[in-house]
Amino acid sequence: AHSVSHQFSPTTPNMIFMLMDDMGWGDLGVYGHPVKETPNLDKMALEGMLLPDFYSANPLCSPSRAAMLTGRLPIRNGFYTTNAHARNAYTPQDIVGGIPDSEILYPELLQKNGYATMIIGKWHLGQQTHYHPLKHGFDEFFGSTNCHFGPFDGKEQPNMPVYRNATMAGRYYQDFPINHKTGESNLTVEYTQEAIKFINKNAANKKPFFLYWTPDATHTPLFASKDFLGTSQRGLYGDAVKELDYSVGQILDTLKTLGIDKDTLVIFSSDNGGATYAKESGGSNSPFLCGKETTFEGGMREPTIAWWPGTIQPGQVSHQLGSLMDWYSTALDLAGISEPSDRIIDGISLAPLFKKGQETNRTIFYYRGNEMMAVRNGLYKAHYWTWTNSLEEFNEGTDFCPGEVINNVTTHDQVNNTAQPVLFHLGRDPGEKYPIKHNSAEYKNAMDVITPIVDDHHKTMIAGNPQLNYCDKAVMNWAPPGCDKLNDCLPIPPSNKQLCTWVH
Amino acid sequence: AHSVSHQFSPTTPNMIFMLMDDMGWGDLGVYGHPVKETPNLDKMALEGMLLPDFYSANPLCSPSRAAMLTGRLPIRNGFYTTNAHARNAYTPQDIVGGIPDSEILYPELLQKNGYATMIIGKWHLGQQTHYHPLKHGFDEFFGSTNCHFGPFDGKEQPNMPVYRNATMAGRYYQDFPINHKTGESNLTVEYTQEAIKFINKNAANKKPFFLYWTPDATHTPLFASKDFLGTSQRGLYGDAVKELDYSVGQILDTLKTLGIDKDTLVIFSSDNGGATYAKESGGSNSPFLCGKETTFEGGMREPTIAWWPGTIQPGQVSHQLGSLMDWYSTALDLAGISEPSDRIIDGISLAPLFKKGQETNRTIFYYRGNEMMAVRNGLYKAHYWTWTNSLEEFNEGTDFCPGEVINNVTTHDQVNNTAQPVLFHLGRDPGEKYPIKHNSAEYKNAMDVITPIVDDHHKTMIAGNPQLNYCDKAVMNWAPPGCDKLNDCLPIPPSNKQLCTWVH
Ligand SMILES: [Ca+2]
Ligand SMILES: [Ca+2]
Repeated sequence: AHSVSHQFSPTTPNMIFMLMDDMGWGDLGVYGHPVKETPNLDKMALEGMLLPDFYSANPLCSPSRAAMLTGRLPIRNGFYTTNAHARNAYTPQDIVGGIPDSEILYPELLQKNGYATMIIGKWHLGQQTHYHPLKHGFDEFFGSTNCHFGPFDGKEQPNMPVYRNATMAGRYYQDFPINHKTGESNLTVEYTQEAIKFINKNAANKKPFFLYWTPDATHTPLFASKDFLGTSQRGLYGDAVKELDYSVGQILDTLKTLGIDKDTLVIFSSDNGGATYAKESGGSNSPFLCGKETTFEGGMREPTIAWWPGTIQPGQVSHQLGSLMDWYSTALDLAGISEPSDRIIDGISLAPLFKKGQETNRTIFYYRGNEMMAVRNGLYKAHYWTWTNSLEEFNEGTDFCPGEVINNVTTHDQVNNTAQPVLFHLGRDPGEKYPIKHNSAEYKNAMDVITPIVDDHHKTMIAGNPQLNYCDKAVMNWAPPGCDKLNDCLPIPPSNKQLCTWVH
Repeated sequence: AHSVSHQFSPTTPNMIFMLMDDMGWGDLGVYGHPVKETPNLDKMALEGMLLPDFYSANPLCSPSRAAMLTGRLPIRNGFYTTNAHARNAYTPQDIVGGIPDSEILYPELLQKNGYATMIIGKWHLGQQTHYHPLKHGFDEFFGSTNCHFGPFDGKEQPNMPVYRNATMAGRYYQDFPINHKTGESNLTVEYTQEAIKFINKNAANKKPFFLYWTPDATHTPLFASKDFLGTSQRGLYGDAVKELDYSVGQILDTLKTLGIDKDTLVIFSSDNGGATYAKESGGSNSPFLCGKETTFEGGMREPTIAWWPGTIQPGQVSHQLGSLMDWYSTALDLAGISEPSDRIIDGISLAPLFKKGQETNRTIFYYRGNEMMAVRNGLYKAHYWTWTNSLEEFNEGTDFCPGEVINNVTTHDQVNNTAQPVLFHLGRDPGEKYPIKHNSAEYKNAMDVITPIVDDHHKTMIAGNPQLNYCDKAVMNWAPPGCDKLNDCLPIPPSNKQLCTWVH
C-alpha cells in the first residue's frame, strides 16, 4: 500500500535521536496536554508516526540512557545496583562506575561505518574520563556527563562541568548559568545552535551523521531562556517544554532547508516518566499511574514520535510496543550494520515499521534495579512486584504518585506478587486502577501467555557486573580534563570508596 | 488576518450541535486517549477549532441539557432540587417536573425564524407529554425522553418509549433492542441515518436547519452495533466511541457531498464528564480529577470541537472558557435573532471567536443542585464547597474518583470552604492536586479578582422554581402517546407524589 516507502535513497539515512529528560507522556499537545503548547511536535507527529505504546527500559535517567545506547536492559549492561533489592540507581558525581568498555554502543558501530557522530546534552553514563562519550563512539560532545544540579560550593561538591569534546568548557552555574530564582538559562538555546551547526557541517560535507540530541531543561532544576520565561500556562515547566518544542521545530526546519529531510530519520522521546515527585515542576503522565522511579505506566511510557518524510507515511499512529532500546537495532539496521552476535540485544529494529508499517510482537520488561517488576504483552501488564517508595521516604514528602492511591498496587512495601501477579488490561484501564480478578478466565488466559515468556526471560538472563554499587568523593568532578586551561582545578579529596545508598 | 471569515454567505448558517452522553474529555485521540481510535473527530479538530477549556453547566445529564437549551444555569431554569443541599438531580421516569413553559429554548426562536429543527437522541427534559420536544421548539423528534435503562418488567416500571415525533414508535428492549450480554444495539446506526435523512431533506428544500444530535451509546448500559463490537482496544466503551466517531464522519461527509459544509456550523461536545463510577465502562477524564456528578474538572470539562469550513480557520486551538450554554447565544447570534431581554442568559456568543478569533473574558460557575460549588476565572479555580459523595455511598461501592485521593479536596463530607476557598491554578495543576497556600500573594491576588465576581453572582441570583423535587409512579411511561396504536398501553397505578430521593 505504501509504495512511496520503496523510493527512498539507497544510501543510509542520517539519524537524529532526540531524548528529553523526565518529560512525561502527557506533556505534548498531541498526547493530550490541555495547554496544547507544542505546535512543532504536534506537526512533527502529523507529518510522521505517533507511537503511544513506547517505553523506556528503566524509570530513571542513567539506566534508561545506557539501555538506549547499548540496546540492552540495564540488568545486562551493568547499569544497576545490587546494594539493595529493586533499587533505582544512577550516576551522581561520586559514582565510581560507568558504561563498561565491554558494551558496544551503536554510535561506535555507526562511527566505524562512516557516520559522523555527536552527542549534545546529558551523557549520564559515568563522569570519570574513561567513561566519556568520545571513548564510546562519539566524535563530538557538547554537554555534561552529569545532571545540572547545583550550585555547589566547591568544598563538599564541585560544580559539574560542561564539556566541549574531551575537555571541559566550564562549569554549570559558574560559566553556564542557571538562575534558580528566575529559571533563566541559555542552555537549550546553545544545545539547539550546536545541533544546527553539526547538521549544517555534515550536510555540507555530504557525510551521513548521527546526532544524539538530549537537552535536559525539563529535569529539575527547570530552566528556559529569556524569550520563553513566563510564556506558558503551565509555569516554568511549560516554558521549558515550549522552548524544546521550538527547538525541535528549528532542527526540522534546518533539515528541510538543506533538502535532507527525506534522508533523515528523526525520533523524539523521553528517558523516563514525568517526575511526579516534583509536583507542579514535573511533567504530566496522564492518564497513566504514578511517574519517574516507578514501574507503573507513568514511570516508563514515553511520548514518542518518528519522522522521516518520504519513508514514514504522514499521520500514522502505531500501537507497536516500542522501547528506547529499539533505537539500537533500528540504527544498525538502517545503516546496514550487523548487530553484535556475542550478546543478547533487547531492542528490535523498527525499520520494517517505519518503511512498511510492519508491526512486531514483543514483550516489554519493566525493571527496577536488579528486579523485573512487571511485564507487558499485548494489552496485558502483569506486576510481579509492586512498590512506589518506602513509607519512611513517603512520610518525609517524596511522593511518586501524588493524589493516587490504588489498594495493593501503589504499595509502600516491596510486595512480591510472583505467585499471582497483579494483572491489568491497559486498553480498558490505562491507569492501572482495576486489577483483573485472579479467578477469571481472562486472568488465566493472559497469564498462560505471559508466564512462559517470563520463565524464559529469567532462565536466559545473565546479569552484568553491577556498575552502580560504589561511590567515592574522590571521583567527583574536582579536576576534569581541561580544568587547568580554565584555571578551575579543585583539590581532590582522599579516596573513600563505599557502597552508595539508594533509597528508591 | 482571517480575511476568509468575511466571505461566508450572508444567509444564516445551518447548525448541527452534537452532544454526547457521559463522554469524557480524555476520550478522543485529539484529547490524548492512548488508543487513538477517533480518526474522524481528530480530523474534524484539524479542520476546525479545538476548545480544551469548554465546560458543561452541570455534572449530570438533565440539568446540563436544560442549561444548553435555555442558555441558563439550572439554578435559574429550574433543573435542580431543593430536597437536600447540593444534590444532583435528573429526570428519571417518575419525575413530575420538566422544562417549564416559561423557559425560552433557542430552537423555539430558530423555529419561529424559519429554521427546520430536529432533535435525534436523548431529550431528558421531562417525560410527561407537555414537556416533550415538539412542545419546546422542535419540528421533529426521533429518540427518547429518558435514558435507555432497562429492561423493566412493566409492573414495577415500564420500558421507556422511543418516539417518532409526538408519538411513541416502540419501547427500548421490546422494539429497540439493547443486548446487555453482547452489548449489541442498532441505535447509533438509526440515529445516524435519521441525521443524514434530515440533512438531505432540508438541503433539498434549501431550508436552513438546526439539528440537535445527541446519541447516548456512551451512557451505561453501553452499546454498539455489530460492526463495531469487539473492535476497540478499550472494550465496549471504546466500541461505542468508535461508532460515534464513525457516525460523525458520516455526517460531516454528507455536508461535504451536499456542498453545504461551508454553510454549516457543527459543534461536538458532551453533556458531563466521564462516568468514573462505571470504572472500565466509563469514559476517561484524564488528566482531570474525578468525574460525572462532581464539580471537579473531570465532572464538567468537555471534549469540544467546532467546525465550519471557510469560517472557522483550520487547526486552531482556543483556550476560550466555553460553556454548553454558549450554544444558546451563539445560535441566536448567527441566526440574527435577539436574545430574550427579560431574563439573564448565562451563555455568551462564540460567533466572534469562530469568525475572528476574538476571545471573551468570562467566569465559569460550577453548580451542584442548589449550590455554587466552584468558580473558574482565568486559570484559577476556587472551590467554595468540596464533595464527592457520602461516605455511606462510597462504602457501598460508588466511587466518583477511583484511585484518586486529594486531602481536603475529594471529601466525603460536604465541606464549606466559603470563608477561604480551596484554590488551584489549572495551568500548572490541571488535576487539582496542589492547593495554593492561603497565605501566599498568589492566593490573595487571585481571590481579589474572584471574590467580587462571586459576590455579584449571588446578589443577582434569582433561583427558578425547582422542577426536580417530586416523583410519582403514576407519571411513568405506562401509556405514552401512541401506545394504543402499538397495543402497548400499560395500566397506570394510582398517583403517589412524594419527594424524590437524591443521594449525590
Ligand atoms: Ca530523566
Ligand atoms: Ca450524561
